[in-house]
Amino acid sequence: MTTTVTTRADALTAAMDHAVTLAERGGSAGGNPRVGCVIVDAAGSARATGFHRGAGSPHAEIAALRSLPRLSPAELAETTMVVTLEPCRHHGRTPPCTEAIRAAGIARVVYAVADPNEAAAGGADALRSAGVEVLTADQAGVSPAARARAEELTHAWRTAVRRARPWLAAKTASSLDGRVAAPDGTSRWITGPEARAHAHTVRAGVDAVVVGTGTVLADDPALTARTGQGPRPSQPLRVVIGERDVPPGAQLRRQPGPWRHLRTRDISAALDVLYADGARRVLLDGGPTLIAAALRSGLVDELHTYLAPALIGAGRSAVTDLGVTTLAEAPRFRTVSTTRLGEDILVIARPTTPTSEGAS
Amino acid sequence: MTTTVTTRADALTAAMDHAVTLAERGGSAGGNPRVGCVIVDAAGSARATGFHRGAGSPHAEIAALRSLPRLSPAELAETTMVVTLEPCRHHGRTPPCTEAIRAAGIARVVYAVADPNEAAAGGADALRSAGVEVLTADQAGVSPAARARAEELTHAWRTAVRRARPWLAAKTASSLDGRVAAPDGTSRWITGPEARAHAHTVRAGVDAVVVGTGTVLADDPALTARTGQGPRPSQPLRVVIGERDVPPGAQLRRQPGPWRHLRTRDISAALDVLYADGARRVLLDGGPTLIAAALRSGLVDELHTYLAPALIGAGRSAVTDLGVTTLAEAPRFRTVSTTRLGEDILVIARPTTPTSEGAS
Repeated sequence: MTTTVTTRADALTAAMDHAVTLAERGGSAGGNPRVGCVIVDAAGSARATGFHRGAGSPHAEIAALRSLPRLSPAELAETTMVVTLEPCRHHGRTPPCTEAIRAAGIARVVYAVADPNEAAAGGADALRSAGVEVLTADQAGVSPAARARAEELTHAWRTAVRRARPWLAAKTASSLDGRVAAPDGTSRWITGPEARAHAHTVRAGVDAVVVGTGTVLADDPALTARTGQGPRPSQPLRVVIGERDVPPGAQLRRQPGPWRHLRTRDISAALDVLYADGARRVLLDGGPTLIAAALRSGLVDELHTYLAPALIGAGRSAVTDLGVTTLAEAPRFRTVSTTRLGEDILVIARPTTPTSEGAS
Repeated sequence: MTTTVTTRADALTAAMDHAVTLAERGGSAGGNPRVGCVIVDAAGSARATGFHRGAGSPHAEIAALRSLPRLSPAELAETTMVVTLEPCRHHGRTPPCTEAIRAAGIARVVYAVADPNEAAAGGADALRSAGVEVLTADQAGVSPAARARAEELTHAWRTAVRRARPWLAAKTASSLDGRVAAPDGTSRWITGPEARAHAHTVRAGVDAVVVGTGTVLADDPALTARTGQGPRPSQPLRVVIGERDVPPGAQLRRQPGPWRHLRTRDISAALDVLYADGARRVLLDGGPTLIAAALRSGLVDELHTYLAPALIGAGRSAVTDLGVTTLAEAPRFRTVSTTRLGEDILVIARPTTPTSEGAS
């Protein structure tokens, strides 16, 4: 493959890694993907950086262009914009990035992942028509590891947009023998403070947190994303699914912030409502019955299993009956990561077979 | 603290690390501890190394002395023997190490861990009486990390000897929701080949593998330590605990190697029998009822929890009732390590409170 990019592949790899690290600082809620952007000169030095801070704020490309110093035409001709996601060409809450890139005189663009959003896609072609050289990260020689990091950044969001249904993570917090409560119903706390703090970080990074009415009645959760000091700046929409009423005194009602009650037992229908509402990443935060229903329907894209080094021996299990009779029927996952959180362990896993493409 | 050791502390740390690495190559079964030994000169260069290969073979110190080249008196005066465990002074299956060290003219000895075995202890004092300078690793300035590695090497063995009861590990292999079998009883295989191979390595490293008669009747295990190519060179004693008979055609009878049936439900009594028989490390390999009984009696020193990224939702749990009613009663552990084995995860954990000191 021949390219006319003057910046070397290792410098572009470093710039892509830098862009991913920037993107990870951005808020991921609000239905928008996390995107990072680094503008480098011929030597590979970063001349400007930017990342997307969440819905309504500038795209990463625009943030980077705003911090770019005035360059000579000769300098501009050697400048490359490295961005984790294909620049958009649509008029949404902000004007198209493609026009801003062209107007700034950027000579070339390297992007890691194509935009799956039909309204926004075509940015690469639009830039080419405007005389900008455009290469995928693969074509530009960016390392597979840096490309994989950039892909993971928008994996959930792209899955949701492609499928027109939110990407769904299901969270459990249990003992090593899979119990989420003791026989008398006590469940606070099975996991330790580090694991619980992590779970609040995850809540702050999704668009909606969903529980069943059974969990509201049993545990009375607030479902807000908090630190030890109080609420986090970014809060998910709090959603209850089920036909029973939410009691007047429930924490869900008393804690500030929006919440919704979807009076249905059909999780797929509920997810369609949330998608139409702008939610792209949804966390199923319990309980065992709702998670089992989502698993049976093939709707779970990722498991977040927090395990405490304790044994309970009886009491409520992490999931109720999945309809599995024999081992060959058990849903299998591939382990994405294992993380020590204090004494606890977080296992993140994804189905070995793709989740249902949905009925929407 | 003043010492007359001429070899520098960092060289002694390196020698202790080397000794631990050698010891780890030794067989750990047969009731003897794993021990490694490195003899260094004043510059810290290894002049001889040795490790214990298992019961009946020479102790690490003797193995190292046998490989030591002939040294001048001046060289011997600058020589230090670095050994993971205090040299023994007793006539067991082999003559005392203390006499061999004195006879070889070794000027000084640095050891990491005192021998808890009453018959063998006192080696340091015996060497001092013979004019050999003796220092603990702490006194010699060996790093805490190297000392911790040396301590871990004999942790299980020392616990057993101090308590006069075998050190007991309890193994489970379950789905993420703690199921060891599907509702129809199928359990082969929940975990993958890497996890199963690891479990066979653990079997080869203990003195005895114990299961209940329920597991023999349900799963008909061979309980031998195998690789894909066949039996491993080191095999544990295979033990069945319980009052029911072992069927004539059981794999346990058909596979070569010794096995015992202890017709009791009292695990503590069974462990006493195994200790008297020379076993120091014992692996409880199932099933859920026997493991729950051992946990209730406070006899489990370590959990080996193999977790497969699968959900079953129903079926047999990893442990049966532990008598826990409310969460505060649940036995808690501290996580020693988490290891990825293919798609599976091995969590090793130890009780946060010491196990029962036993009635023996």
